[in-house]
Amino acid sequence: MEPDAMLDLARSIFAKQPFTRYLGAELLELSDTGAIIQLRLREELRQQHGFAHGGVLSYLADNAITFAGGMALKSDALTSEFKINYLRPAQATLLRAEAGAVSVSGRQAVCQCSIYAIDDADKTLCALAQGTVVRISKG
Amino acid sequence: MEPDAMLDLARSIFAKQPFTRYLGAELLELSDTGAIIQLRLREELRQQHGFAHGGVLSYLADNAITFAGGMALKSDALTSEFKINYLRPAQATLLRAEAGAVSVSGRQAVCQCSIYAIDDADKTLCALAQGTVVRISKG
Amino acid sequence: MEPDAMLDLARSIFAKQPFTRYLGAELLELSDTGAIIQLRLREELRQQHGFAHGGVLSYLADNAITFAGGMALKSDALTSEFKINYLRPAQATLLRAEAGAVSVSGRQAVCQCSIYAIDDADKTLCALAQGTVVRISKG
Amino acid sequence: MEPDAMLDLARSIFAKQPFTRYLGAELLELSDTGAIIQLRLREELRQQHGFAHGGVLSYLADNAITFAGGMALKSDALTSEFKINYLRPAQATLLRAEAGAVSVSGRQAVCQCSIYAIDDADKTLCALAQGTVVRISKG
Repeated sequence: MEPDAMLDLARSIFAKQPFTRYLGAELLELSDTGAIIQLRLREELRQQHGFAHGGVLSYLADNAITFAGGMALKSDALTSEFKINYLRPAQATLLRAEAGAVSVSGRQAVCQCSIYAIDDADKTLCALAQGTVVRISKG
Repeated sequence: MEPDAMLDLARSIFAKQPFTRYLGAELLELSDTGAIIQLRLREELRQQHGFAHGGVLSYLADNAITFAGGMALKSDALTSEFKINYLRPAQATLLRAEAGAVSVSGRQAVCQCSIYAIDDADKTLCALAQGTVVRISKG
Repeated sequence: MEPDAMLDLARSIFAKQPFTRYLGAELLELSDTGAIIQLRLREELRQQHGFAHGGVLSYLADNAITFAGGMALKSDALTSEFKINYLRPAQATLLRAEAGAVSVSGRQAVCQCSIYAIDDADKTLCALAQGTVVRISKG
Repeated sequence: MEPDAMLDLARSIFAKQPFTRYLGAELLELSDTGAIIQLRLREELRQQHGFAHGGVLSYLADNAITFAGGMALKSDALTSEFKINYLRPAQATLLRAEAGAVSVSGRQAVCQCSIYAIDDADKTLCALAQGTVVRISKG
């Protein structure tokens, strides 16, 4: 797929995800092998102690990995598996997931993702993920 | 902690999670070493093809693992890491995550979790997760 | 592939692995979706405190998952990824890895594996793994 | 622990691992938060197609992560869990695992590890791992 068509496809898929809209996530940046997704940490996204819920961080990892892998594979794609390590409680104005494909081979890309909590100039690493993205076969 | 106090603590923590309420998840069952969480697959929880978003399944895995581990540790607890394999697209009326602690040692429990898509009598395994829960130290 | 041909293929691949022979592992059992591999815990397989080295347990997980997935896929296969949680130090006469495919879809099987330390009647769970096996495409 | 004492401790632990000696691994480099382990890919370390056995790569990931985490924690330490993605078959003169601690908090370090196959000037990324190292409590 041509680079511009690929960017359009990725942005259009992102915009069509009801869950992404429900959480309020924003596709901040796309590159040849990467994606950055950002999310304002609203009250609804917290756990009982006021930190971002682990499920919000895992959503960010899952989705940023999917888009990074899709860009690298130049194709519609899905995450087949990932693992996430939570490093510290995330409490900030913004959450930002930065994912990149480290390796592409055939129909699969392996990606890493760092999730940050951001307040003004402060950027704290909160979670680290690694996963596999596979090309969606055309029917 | 006494069993009844532990059940009360777990239910009260679950009820206090803003993200859990935002998604509409329900704590279906708690046991000495397990937890079952259920979620109605509303439109807002889907991805672009109408299936449950991976981030919804990863929320379920994260949270069911946390509560299973907390029950096994008999303590307030948090998931420090997990991995999830998506097995097939989840499209059903209900999603149900069944987690159990397989091993408890000191301040840590290792748990497995199966996530099902459920329509009436149909129960299809959609995702499989494994992770670590650690006791929250009192300050 | 026919069941008998599949058993022969799996046994012949196992016997041809130089690393498996170097460690002294034995293919104890094969089923339609599972594999059990056993290893005598010789001195050479230990770490500095006399327990089985983590790398020995991860070899067992990797290989048992590969053979369970291959049986389920009825094909030559390889492990593309896995995760392992070490539960307790393994010190026993034998180590045994029991793996089974939990889900098979198309060219991929997702497997779980339990590793035990065994002394006579004592069987202690030491590690838990989960991973993905993919069919090897014919060239 | 003082930096020099920590280097001595790490080197002495590495030298005392029977499994590490059996495989022939070499501790190439230690830093404040990292470790590099190298291994000559002898015949005994291969699988049936002549590539490095997955269990050899997982040993390298496990051990490099343990030493990187131990350096970062400035303590004797063990890997409690890790995940590995195999990226491509490893066939080369040398295998090299480069691990670094990405985050340290209290008694735990989360590390990433890249494993390369090396022939002269050629260095090919073959596997990617991420895991948790915990401080060993003094008895």
